[in-house]
Amino acid sequence: MSDEQQIKEVLARYVRATDRRDGTAQGALFTDEAVVQMLTKTGPDTYEPVGEPIIGGAGVRYAVENFMAPHPEGGSSHHVTADHIIEIDGDFAHVNAQVIVFEIRAAKRPSNGWPAGAFGMQGTVRPIESGYYDTDLHRIDGVWKIVRHRLLLDMPIALPGT
Amino acid sequence: MSDEQQIKEVLARYVRATDRRDGTAQGALFTDEAVVQMLTKTGPDTYEPVGEPIIGGAGVRYAVENFMAPHPEGGSSHHVTADHIIEIDGDFAHVNAQVIVFEIRAAKRPSNGWPAGAFGMQGTVRPIESGYYDTDLHRIDGVWKIVRHRLLLDMPIALPGT
Amino acid sequence: MSDEQQIKEVLARYVRATDRRDGTAQGALFTDEAVVQMLTKTGPDTYEPVGEPIIGGAGVRYAVENFMAPHPEGGSSHHVTADHIIEIDGDFAHVNAQVIVFEIRAAKRPSNGWPAGAFGMQGTVRPIESGYYDTDLHRIDGVWKIVRHRLLLDMPIALPGT
Repeated sequence: MSDEQQIKEVLARYVRATDRRDGTAQGALFTDEAVVQMLTKTGPDTYEPVGEPIIGGAGVRYAVENFMAPHPEGGSSHHVTADHIIEIDGDFAHVNAQVIVFEIRAAKRPSNGWPAGAFGMQGTVRPIESGYYDTDLHRIDGVWKIVRHRLLLDMPIALPGT
Repeated sequence: MSDEQQIKEVLARYVRATDRRDGTAQGALFTDEAVVQMLTKTGPDTYEPVGEPIIGGAGVRYAVENFMAPHPEGGSSHHVTADHIIEIDGDFAHVNAQVIVFEIRAAKRPSNGWPAGAFGMQGTVRPIESGYYDTDLHRIDGVWKIVRHRLLLDMPIALPGT
Repeated sequence: MSDEQQIKEVLARYVRATDRRDGTAQGALFTDEAVVQMLTKTGPDTYEPVGEPIIGGAGVRYAVENFMAPHPEGGSSHHVTADHIIEIDGDFAHVNAQVIVFEIRAAKRPSNGWPAGAFGMQGTVRPIESGYYDTDLHRIDGVWKIVRHRLLLDMPIALPGT
């Protein structure tokens, strides 16, 4: 597999882990010293950090397990990445990708069946977040690991007390 | 062209054929014995099959031509794949990809022109389905063909009588 | 970097330039004689041109700087490409890609903080356009440049006076 595909697959595994709220799988993509920072947009080309950086795979795992809202019954999500721009210099690499997040809410089948006239998929798919992943990787023992990850988000985040 | 790109292009042609309701083009991507199964999500990591499997390129062609709802006037769709995870072992390969389906409904230009104030694209783009494609391929005479295709859909489907 | 990835990155840079309304960056992706044509769908497989073609990188730059609506405060966009089909013949290449455009409108944080109960991203992400990019490229001095670019849009466009 080419390095460029291996690097895209790090993000492909990252988004699957996020969507499954699988902190172990997500944390395993990062080195112990990795620095992860969420930022939100403040102007055409400016961002400000949100909270403190998360450190290392263990920190990522903890954050996924403790701070991400679980999906409700019938709920799921897709973090979709696209338009990767990749630079590789030996065992170091950088990737920038677009990301759009979709929230899925499946309808629950009524015990007496779908109502008359219902046809096709039952539920909603809704884009709720967007931005860029800006990520540095280092190849260690033949495996690309994330050493720095910035989530550049287009919209502000409301957190309790802010 | 790399094998990884060739494999992604099988799905890229699949989605174009689906969106055009082109059963011949879509069927041509499968072997005669290919097994295609639609499944819907029943829990965080569980799915149940919907209906019987479709068998082979001829079965896929028949299904596209007979079971897919035609687009209304001004209607179209985009099945978009992303975040491919690919494994290749000689002439055998596996790919898992995210898929989001968008439904397009173009507005019809009134015979006396667009209303005052109308500006830009006229119509709607709406995400309506999502899930994963999980697909096995076999290279035959230098061409990657689908031998097994599972559509893992996030939401339940209402069909007449269910 | 493989030719196929280099070619995808031309579109990846194109969409970033479009989303930033950066006419200089977008124009730099085209040759001086490049022909750019927007078309809208008139039937299942038919399109009609919208306006005259734009010629060359300078024309693209001018169009971005003069004809694209600027984002409002808190506004941004993502042109997302996917499902690339690529043909390469020496220094000539063709790529066809799906494109979905998302419009982002960030909410503005009230001076006294987010309202009680607000949680998560504040604003909207909305798909507003879709279609295909159909693009010819020529490698000149080792760099892939766009020589012909067609925007095949699914929906009609309302322009003043049409």
